[in-house]
Amino acid sequence: MSDKKTAVLVVMDGLGDRPLKELGGKTPLQAAKTPTFDRLARDGQNGLMNVIGPGITPGSDTAHLALFGYDPVAEYPGRGPLEAFGAGLKTEPGDVAFRSNFATVDSNLVVLDRRAGRDFTPEEQADLQAALDGIEIDGVKVRFIATVEHRGALILKGEGLSADISDADPHETGKKILTVRALKPDAEKTAAIVNKLMRVAHERMKDLETNKERAKKGIPLANAILLRGGGRHTDIPSLKQRYGIKTAVLAGGALYIGVAEFVGMKHIPVEGQTGTIDTNFHNIALKAIETIKADYNYVFVHIKATDNAAHDGNAAEKVQAIEKTDEMVGRILEDVADQVVIAVTGDHTTAVSVGEHQCDPVPIVFWSDFIRADSVKRFSEFDAPDGALHTIKGMDVMPMLLGYSGYIEKFGS
Amino acid sequence: MSDKKTAVLVVMDGLGDRPLKELGGKTPLQAAKTPTFDRLARDGQNGLMNVIGPGITPGSDTAHLALFGYDPVAEYPGRGPLEAFGAGLKTEPGDVAFRSNFATVDSNLVVLDRRAGRDFTPEEQADLQAALDGIEIDGVKVRFIATVEHRGALILKGEGLSADISDADPHETGKKILTVRALKPDAEKTAAIVNKLMRVAHERMKDLETNKERAKKGIPLANAILLRGGGRHTDIPSLKQRYGIKTAVLAGGALYIGVAEFVGMKHIPVEGQTGTIDTNFHNIALKAIETIKADYNYVFVHIKATDNAAHDGNAAEKVQAIEKTDEMVGRILEDVADQVVIAVTGDHTTAVSVGEHQCDPVPIVFWSDFIRADSVKRFSEFDAPDGALHTIKGMDVMPMLLGYSGYIEKFGS
Repeated sequence: MSDKKTAVLVVMDGLGDRPLKELGGKTPLQAAKTPTFDRLARDGQNGLMNVIGPGITPGSDTAHLALFGYDPVAEYPGRGPLEAFGAGLKTEPGDVAFRSNFATVDSNLVVLDRRAGRDFTPEEQADLQAALDGIEIDGVKVRFIATVEHRGALILKGEGLSADISDADPHETGKKILTVRALKPDAEKTAAIVNKLMRVAHERMKDLETNKERAKKGIPLANAILLRGGGRHTDIPSLKQRYGIKTAVLAGGALYIGVAEFVGMKHIPVEGQTGTIDTNFHNIALKAIETIKADYNYVFVHIKATDNAAHDGNAAEKVQAIEKTDEMVGRILEDVADQVVIAVTGDHTTAVSVGEHQCDPVPIVFWSDFIRADSVKRFSEFDAPDGALHTIKGMDVMPMLLGYSGYIEKFGS
Repeated sequence: MSDKKTAVLVVMDGLGDRPLKELGGKTPLQAAKTPTFDRLARDGQNGLMNVIGPGITPGSDTAHLALFGYDPVAEYPGRGPLEAFGAGLKTEPGDVAFRSNFATVDSNLVVLDRRAGRDFTPEEQADLQAALDGIEIDGVKVRFIATVEHRGALILKGEGLSADISDADPHETGKKILTVRALKPDAEKTAAIVNKLMRVAHERMKDLETNKERAKKGIPLANAILLRGGGRHTDIPSLKQRYGIKTAVLAGGALYIGVAEFVGMKHIPVEGQTGTIDTNFHNIALKAIETIKADYNYVFVHIKATDNAAHDGNAAEKVQAIEKTDEMVGRILEDVADQVVIAVTGDHTTAVSVGEHQCDPVPIVFWSDFIRADSVKRFSEFDAPDGALHTIKGMDVMPMLLGYSGYIEKFGS
């Protein structure tokens, strides 16, 4: 293909839903006024999508890996590395990363508070981070970043590390931090290091200025870390390596930025993009247009507000988030419709009636000015099954977008 | 998910069919009055299913393995272990099992009758079984159970056994029992044991009381066994191990009970469930309700009558079997509709016009009180393709049922 276009993927998090009484038996997507999405549906191709597979409820991290064209099972590095990426602390192949909590323990390492009270000032976070970042144990270097409240990400850097170890977190108070065991023979070294790290961290944290102050104020000390979601950064090819394309992410939530950066996308900050209903949809549209007009071949735009509303059981806010995204996509297409192949979808169903991720497939629409239209007239869970795409998987989205955009070479001759 | 439901799979064996002149160009499913199935179709999700894969005609054993969520190729243990399970003689990982015939041979082991006349009294079966069960050869123990007529199941228990051996059964009369050969190097031991077993069995059987009596009556002696369908019980995880669920099977036919028990289901006997058109549909409904109300998470109900009728070329009886199953499912839902996620389908097509299994896909419908309905109004081979499920595979059924029931953990976070 000579005239290449820019592939654009717009994901409304948790978009899919079930009929709701408060919406007259409609889903939020059906209830929303979506002139732009309906135009894409009418002039484009529609279908349902099992993001991971039939019956599987996707997590946000695995769902996005699949939407970026990666095998969510074989190429999933665990939440640890993805969180670290999202927090701006990038792992490299071979690193093992964890999600971390500041916690309160007694002198026998019995857990008294798994979140050490939850609230931390930026100064406290900096103090704790400085105590942990840079620890070295048996030649393995520890990197640490504090993120939100009691949360953080911890990376082990060194030779021969493995994430096949048991948990240190007892997951309840009143129990001692657990001795980590190797779940596979080649994880003995990592297990030993994590066990040492639990003690070293406690020693370094317990007498910090932060904890002297917290003790005075009578709030829980942050004198230990609890690690979970360990994962090894496997050496997967970046999108650049796999497809030779230049890619960008516009997102508010750290996790989505993290997954996108993990596969090599460049994060383009947008003023006012917050990952909530108050995110600046207008600024996102303008920045998306700018990015599409620049030399990016693929632009991923993530809207989190739909999912937040569904988790909160707030149908009206989910409708509003969808309508604002529709308007945003309309604004983008006003400027660059002739330059894009666009897909609009969700990463999973978050049913307002349940408030949690569900396994129900999500609708997806592909549009460009040359793509054959099918018979569907509306973008919704109930119209999509009649579309030309029938049922696809999350992993199909990237090749379809890039195939139509002109970035996948002919296979064979 | 907090509100879990019980997953119910109703399989009408050989349900799928082709249009029949004697039914005015309808399939038996189209010709049958099925108010309950049609209600499920109208309020649920429909599709076609290739139980194994496109163009592949399923056997009953492989089809059910797939419907239970197992890979029918990689995880198929062979017919032997499944028959043994069905007969109540359970194999364990590492065992090799065969289907067995009682046969008549001369003193040179030339086969005179491959079924030894076919008819056996329970006393004769017990006598023969006692002679065979418990044989030991080179540290390998033989378990044997007589089942129906001349049939039985034989298990080898020991270290390092393999099912990669050639057949002993010459498959025609007038030929000597064949020397078994190893088809792979690690099967040498098993081949040698089976060859010895052929002689030992003959020695033990030839002078039994049963054969003295049969000789007097002039009916064929049961003085040898012919083994076929050998398979090694591979160590596959049970449904309990894979999904953490408690599962039950309500079935008449030994094979279906066998496959279900092989993956860890508990067989719940139903008075009058025979696997024929005279099976007690009412009792099956009552027992299904009882099982659903108990603490089972998954209940599999198998109806064999549809397949029997199709193999006999009896369209009217197939229609009748479908209508009785419809009534049975209606009865179940009267009581427990709000407690279930239910799928109704067949395990393959058995075309009345051919009298054999065919590769044509079968219709399937999923229903629960929260599942998004599609536009299909009738449960049939000709309506199902318009449904929201499009075409699924047999292996998709278990994750879909358990995903909607709430028994599959979110994948990722």
